[in-house]
Amino acid sequence: MNNFTFYSPTCFVFGKDTENQAGALVKRFGGSRVLVHFGGGSAIRSGLIDRVEASLKAEGLVSFRLGGVKPNPRSGLVYEGIELCRKENIDFILAVGGGSSIDSAKAIAAGTVYDGDFWDFYSGKYIEEALPVGTVLTIAAAGSEGSPDSVITLEDGMFKRGASGDAIRPKFSILNPALTQTLPPYQTAAGITDIMAHLYERYLTNTPEVEVTDRMIEALLLTMIHEGPRVIENPDNYDARANIMWAGMMAHNNSCGVGRSQDWNSHNIEHELSALYDCAHGAGLAVTLPAVFTYVMNHDVMRFAQVAVRVWGCQMDFAHPEVTAREGIEKLRQFFISIGMPRSFAELGAKEEDIPTLVHSLCYGDGRPGTISGFVTLNEEDCTNIYRLML
Amino acid sequence: MNNFTFYSPTCFVFGKDTENQAGALVKRFGGSRVLVHFGGGSAIRSGLIDRVEASLKAEGLVSFRLGGVKPNPRSGLVYEGIELCRKENIDFILAVGGGSSIDSAKAIAAGTVYDGDFWDFYSGKYIEEALPVGTVLTIAAAGSEGSPDSVITLEDGMFKRGASGDAIRPKFSILNPALTQTLPPYQTAAGITDIMAHLYERYLTNTPEVEVTDRMIEALLLTMIHEGPRVIENPDNYDARANIMWAGMMAHNNSCGVGRSQDWNSHNIEHELSALYDCAHGAGLAVTLPAVFTYVMNHDVMRFAQVAVRVWGCQMDFAHPEVTAREGIEKLRQFFISIGMPRSFAELGAKEEDIPTLVHSLCYGDGRPGTISGFVTLNEEDCTNIYRLML
Repeated sequence: MNNFTFYSPTCFVFGKDTENQAGALVKRFGGSRVLVHFGGGSAIRSGLIDRVEASLKAEGLVSFRLGGVKPNPRSGLVYEGIELCRKENIDFILAVGGGSSIDSAKAIAAGTVYDGDFWDFYSGKYIEEALPVGTVLTIAAAGSEGSPDSVITLEDGMFKRGASGDAIRPKFSILNPALTQTLPPYQTAAGITDIMAHLYERYLTNTPEVEVTDRMIEALLLTMIHEGPRVIENPDNYDARANIMWAGMMAHNNSCGVGRSQDWNSHNIEHELSALYDCAHGAGLAVTLPAVFTYVMNHDVMRFAQVAVRVWGCQMDFAHPEVTAREGIEKLRQFFISIGMPRSFAELGAKEEDIPTLVHSLCYGDGRPGTISGFVTLNEEDCTNIYRLML
Repeated sequence: MNNFTFYSPTCFVFGKDTENQAGALVKRFGGSRVLVHFGGGSAIRSGLIDRVEASLKAEGLVSFRLGGVKPNPRSGLVYEGIELCRKENIDFILAVGGGSSIDSAKAIAAGTVYDGDFWDFYSGKYIEEALPVGTVLTIAAAGSEGSPDSVITLEDGMFKRGASGDAIRPKFSILNPALTQTLPPYQTAAGITDIMAHLYERYLTNTPEVEVTDRMIEALLLTMIHEGPRVIENPDNYDARANIMWAGMMAHNNSCGVGRSQDWNSHNIEHELSALYDCAHGAGLAVTLPAVFTYVMNHDVMRFAQVAVRVWGCQMDFAHPEVTAREGIEKLRQFFISIGMPRSFAELGAKEEDIPTLVHSLCYGDGRPGTISGFVTLNEEDCTNIYRLML
C-alpha cells in the first residue's frame, strides 16, 4: 500500500427533510451573504429553491440566485458567477442540484478569490483557497458532494477538464434521498453508472496488496447492483435511493481509493464524448467502460477475474481466468443495458467519422503529451481502437 | 435507513515515516505548547517519543511529557494531565500510542477546558469543547484515532464508561503501519479482535434496508479474516499491517455505521471484565462476542445467517437458517482462537463466583436502570446467562 493523506472534513447531513437545515448549516460554517447556485427550472418548480431560501432567511442570511447551470457545466456561467460574487461581496456558495451545479459552484468559489483566470485550476494548478461551499444534493451520481474535485467545460474549444483542492471540499452536504425520487429513470440510471464508474476507476490499480480498499470497492459495487434495479423498477423506493446516495458519496470521497494507483482513463475517454455531443456523462460511461475494459483486460487478467467472481458472482474458471474476466465485463455491460443505458456510439448520438477529432482532443487537447495514463498508458492508436469498440 | 449526520474531519496521514510530520501537523492545527501523552517505556525505548519531539522542536513548538498511561486507562492520570495542562497553558495534546493513550488524551482535552469534574462526560454529558488532540497511532485496534469517543475507568468503583463529542475527534492522526510491527502477537491479535467487534456491534441492527452499510461492514470483516492470520504468521508483513490499520480506522469512524441502530451490548459486557480483571479489552471481546451472539441469535436468525454466508463462506441451509447462523458464530469463535485469543472465562483470569458482581455493576453501575439495551435489551438474568456461557 502506498503512503497517503486522507482528509474529508465535510459534514454530511442525511435523510428526510434535511434541506430545511441549510440555513443553520451555512451559518455554522460562517456564511452570511449566500449565492444559491442551481440548474434548470425543476429545482424552482418543485419548491426546493423556495424551501432552501426560506431556511436561509430564517437564519437572517442574505441570498442571491444564480440559476442556469447546464449538465456538463460551462465556463461562461462560472465567469458570470465570479463577477456576481465579487460585486455582491458573497462569502458562501450554496449549490442546489447535482454534480453540475456543485462543480460550477466550486469553480466560482475558487475563481472569486483568485487574481488570475479560474481556468488555470483546470489546466493543472492546485486550488489552495476558495470561498466556502455547501451543497443540497438532488441526484446521486458525481460524488462531488464529498470530493475535492470539479469538472468544467471550457466553451472556447469545448475542453472538459478537472480541477482539485481540499479548499473546494464542501463544508457541508445535505443528502435527502427523497429529493432524488422525482428524477427521470434515464438520469437515475446515468447516476448509477457514474457511481459504478468511480468505483471501477479506483479498482483498476497497479498497486499490490490493497485488500481493504478492494473489498470496500466491491462492497459498494454490490450495493449498486442490488439497489440499482430496485430503484429503476420503483422510483419512489426511498430506502433504495438512500443506499445508492450514501454509496455514491463513499464511492468518490476516496476513502476506498487511498493508498493505491487509480485509473481514470475511462473518465477521460468519456469526457470527450459528453463535451462534443453533450450526452449525459453517465450514459457516455455506460458505453465507454466495457470497451476500455475489454481493451486493457490482458494487462491484469486476475484483477478482472477477481471483480467478476466477487462482485458479479461468476464461477472462477481456474484453467482460463480470461474467460471469467471477460464474463465479468459482459455482466457489467448487460447491467447497464438493463437499467436503460445506451450500448453503442450510435445510441449516444456519436459518429464514427468524429473518432479522429475525439482522439486528437483526448491525447493532445489542453497540453496533453499524446497519451493518457492510468491503469495502462494509452496512445492515439489505443484510443482509436477503444472508440471503435464502442461502435 | 434512518436520518443521520456524519462528520469525520480528522486528517489521516498514513504510511512509512509519517511520524516525522507530527510537528508540522500540530502547527497546522494551531498548537504551540504541546502535551505529549503516552503509555509505557516501549515508546521511549523504540525512539518514537524522541522522533516525535524532534519533529515538534523543528517547528519551534514547546512540548511537555506525560507518560504512564495504562491499558484500560484510569481517571487518576487524567486528573494529573488536566492539572498539568492548566499549569503550563498547554494548547494541544498529542497522544502517542494506542486507544488507551488516545482516550486518556481526549479526556484530558475535554477536562482541561471544563469547570466541573471531567467524569461528568463519562456519566452521559456530551463533550462540546476540548483542547485540540492529535495522535500517532502504534496499534490498530480501538479506532479512537478517527472516533469522537473515549473510554476511561473511574478508579473509585472501577467503572469503565465512555464519553463522546465531535470536539474530541482528533484534528489529525498519523498512521504508520511499521510502528505496529514490534507489537507482541497477543496484542496484535487483541487489536484484530477489537476491530472485528466494532464491526459486529454495528452489524447487529434492528434497522431494515441498510444494504450499503451491511456490505461495507462485511468488506472490512473479510479484510480482517484475510489479513489477520497473515500478520500473526509474519509480524513484519507491512502490507498486512497497513490493510488492518486502515480497516481499523474505517471500522470505527462510523462511515459504515450511519443510518442504522447499533448494538454495543458486547462492549458493555466486556468492559466489566477488563475493568475488574484488567485483561486486554480485545481478549475479553474474543470470549464475549460468541457468547452474546449465541444468546441473542434467535432475535434475528437471518441476520446471523447473512454474515455467516457473506463473510464466513458458509453454505446457506435454506431449510434451517439457524444452522447456518450458528455455523457463522462458531467460525468467528474458531478464528479468535486461531489467532491466539482466549476462549473462556478461566483463560481471561475471570471467576465464576464474580458473576453476580459483574452483572450488578453492568446493570446498575453508574446509574443504569437494571438493563442494558442494544440489538436486544438484556436484564440481569440475561447477562448472568451470557457470562455463564463464557465459562
